[in-house]
Amino acid sequence: TGVATMKFKSPPVNSLSLDFLTEFCIGLEKLENDRACRGVIFTSTIPKIFSSGLDITEMYGKSTEHYAEFWRAVQEMWLRLYGSNMVTVAAINGSSPAGGCLVALSCDYRIMVENPKFSIGLNEAQLGIVAPFWFKDTFVNVVGHRVAESSLQLGSLHAAPEAHRIGLVDELVPEEKLQERAAAVMAQWLALPDHARQLTKSMMRKAVLDRLVAHREEDIQNFTTFISKESIQKSLRMYMEMLKKKKG
Amino acid sequence: TGVATMKFKSPPVNSLSLDFLTEFCIGLEKLENDRACRGVIFTSTIPKIFSSGLDITEMYGKSTEHYAEFWRAVQEMWLRLYGSNMVTVAAINGSSPAGGCLVALSCDYRIMVENPKFSIGLNEAQLGIVAPFWFKDTFVNVVGHRVAESSLQLGSLHAAPEAHRIGLVDELVPEEKLQERAAAVMAQWLALPDHARQLTKSMMRKAVLDRLVAHREEDIQNFTTFISKESIQKSLRMYMEMLKKKKG
Amino acid sequence: TGVATMKFKSPPVNSLSLDFLTEFCIGLEKLENDRACRGVIFTSTIPKIFSSGLDITEMYGKSTEHYAEFWRAVQEMWLRLYGSNMVTVAAINGSSPAGGCLVALSCDYRIMVENPKFSIGLNEAQLGIVAPFWFKDTFVNVVGHRVAESSLQLGSLHAAPEAHRIGLVDELVPEEKLQERAAAVMAQWLALPDHARQLTKSMMRKAVLDRLVAHREEDIQNFTTFISKESIQKSLRMYMEMLKKKKG
Repeated sequence: TGVATMKFKSPPVNSLSLDFLTEFCIGLEKLENDRACRGVIFTSTIPKIFSSGLDITEMYGKSTEHYAEFWRAVQEMWLRLYGSNMVTVAAINGSSPAGGCLVALSCDYRIMVENPKFSIGLNEAQLGIVAPFWFKDTFVNVVGHRVAESSLQLGSLHAAPEAHRIGLVDELVPEEKLQERAAAVMAQWLALPDHARQLTKSMMRKAVLDRLVAHREEDIQNFTTFISKESIQKSLRMYMEMLKKKKG
Repeated sequence: TGVATMKFKSPPVNSLSLDFLTEFCIGLEKLENDRACRGVIFTSTIPKIFSSGLDITEMYGKSTEHYAEFWRAVQEMWLRLYGSNMVTVAAINGSSPAGGCLVALSCDYRIMVENPKFSIGLNEAQLGIVAPFWFKDTFVNVVGHRVAESSLQLGSLHAAPEAHRIGLVDELVPEEKLQERAAAVMAQWLALPDHARQLTKSMMRKAVLDRLVAHREEDIQNFTTFISKESIQKSLRMYMEMLKKKKG
Repeated sequence: TGVATMKFKSPPVNSLSLDFLTEFCIGLEKLENDRACRGVIFTSTIPKIFSSGLDITEMYGKSTEHYAEFWRAVQEMWLRLYGSNMVTVAAINGSSPAGGCLVALSCDYRIMVENPKFSIGLNEAQLGIVAPFWFKDTFVNVVGHRVAESSLQLGSLHAAPEAHRIGLVDELVPEEKLQERAAAVMAQWLALPDHARQLTKSMMRKAVLDRLVAHREEDIQNFTTFISKESIQKSLRMYMEMLKKKKG
């Protein structure tokens, strides 16, 4: 059918670790170069979690070189996904904070399970960190400036019904219908001639993609400087301890 | 009353041929220079069709020079209409795909007959071609980035109720009320002092108008190169044959 | 609690006179420099009026130097408020046309009394004048391009329920609940770490702030030239006479 499904399976919570990102990029590149593949559906095999976002352990207590390598991998993932020539559909079957939300936002279409216990959003501010400008640009392209401004400042995690209401996801479905609906949406998008669709997609996304490409090293520099700060490291440690307590 | 009505009457489907566009520009320029005229209502005298968009026969099997001349006329129409000092109201009394949708999008206000059989949209992708950047910019200014991105990639034709829901048209009315309502809206817009309204309109639209003016020759070059491609010519031929079969 | 309330009390209608603007800027700067203060709520002590906007008497029959001084003060107010590091909440307990609307638009969150007799909007065009580009940019960031385009051209004053529907205000409450709700919203925004929230806010607003900073003198020049025109002075005189008759 020309459609691949990429299933996130990195227990316990599909964190976007350096390994995960590297594997993701290799997998995506393979599909991109496979002329038989025209579309990819992203979903999770882990119950209740789509992806928990950037792996905090990659951002805590490591060397500047490690932060730089990690951030380059995050950029690479986004550049490939947001700029993909394939049709990309996010079948969001669980919560999807921060970087997990970015993965969903970078797809062409987002379907989420209608469970109000699942939430999605760029909640970086809650952790004391700041979503970089290209997370913000991607978000604004989906929900508009006003919603993005308030959601980013509040670090909001939007429960599925609210995520749908503000346009963060395109539709909600019962969990058992998710894969069927993702396949149907994919078929609808693949009914269009690839060439015209790809040029159109590129026209819509080029300005935002080009902006990161033009400022990539500067963005890595900003990230490593910011994340190395004692105050930020302290925020992350407190956040990780809070997560541990929650589990405990 | 200072209001002109421009009625599209080019059977069978109000295609935007080179002749139509030339006549449209001359007519609009006359009104623009007529100080007694402050507003124009655009509507169709052809049942069920507002305008079917760019005339495909102008884009198929012709010379490069012809394509360039045609495209310059399309640009000219848009530059004059989107940048008009007059109040422009589209009274959309039928379907309005592609270039027909652009005409409507370029007005100050859009009223559509509430018949769900009438549809409107920039469906270029369905034909295997790509809406140029200034169609896209005009569309984004009306419906926002997210709706434009998905609608353009799918080449969507939105039935009147959906067109209203996504903001592509400002209101729906029963067919028999259309002209009366267009006149009432026009009166509301003309109640404002011309000078302040015109400066405000220019402030809102200047960036997008300037972008085409700055890239006009490049845009003509892109169009002629793209449309001359064998694969694109083939797509257009198939589309025309499909249309013929439909009629047959 | 780290929250200040700035109460507008300049009878009869909280016009933004040169004195009002100067006092406003001094007050805001003091709070900005007070490390104990993290948020400000703006509200009015005058019944039925939040702020009636720029004081027309500052724009009528005065010298060019006066117009320039006044306009610089308007710019200063906006640069400080839109760029404030504090959380800013507008508790809109009355009508808020023109510059009054700008004050509200420049806050982080807008709560309005649900009274449909209270209206808000950038109605400059009604007076025959034009909202400057940075009023427009601020408005577009809140309500999007399409709503801004039509609202600015029509000089619309939106009754509270409509203002809420188009996103100009974030929520409506009964008058007796306004201050309580403003405090609750403030608490929600202050729950986030200041540093991350401030950097995020700056990321969202920097482009629009920078644009005025880069064109500040030119903008003053434009204003003084425009407002000095005989035709504009006449429009303002007629508007003031109309207001007097209304009162009379």
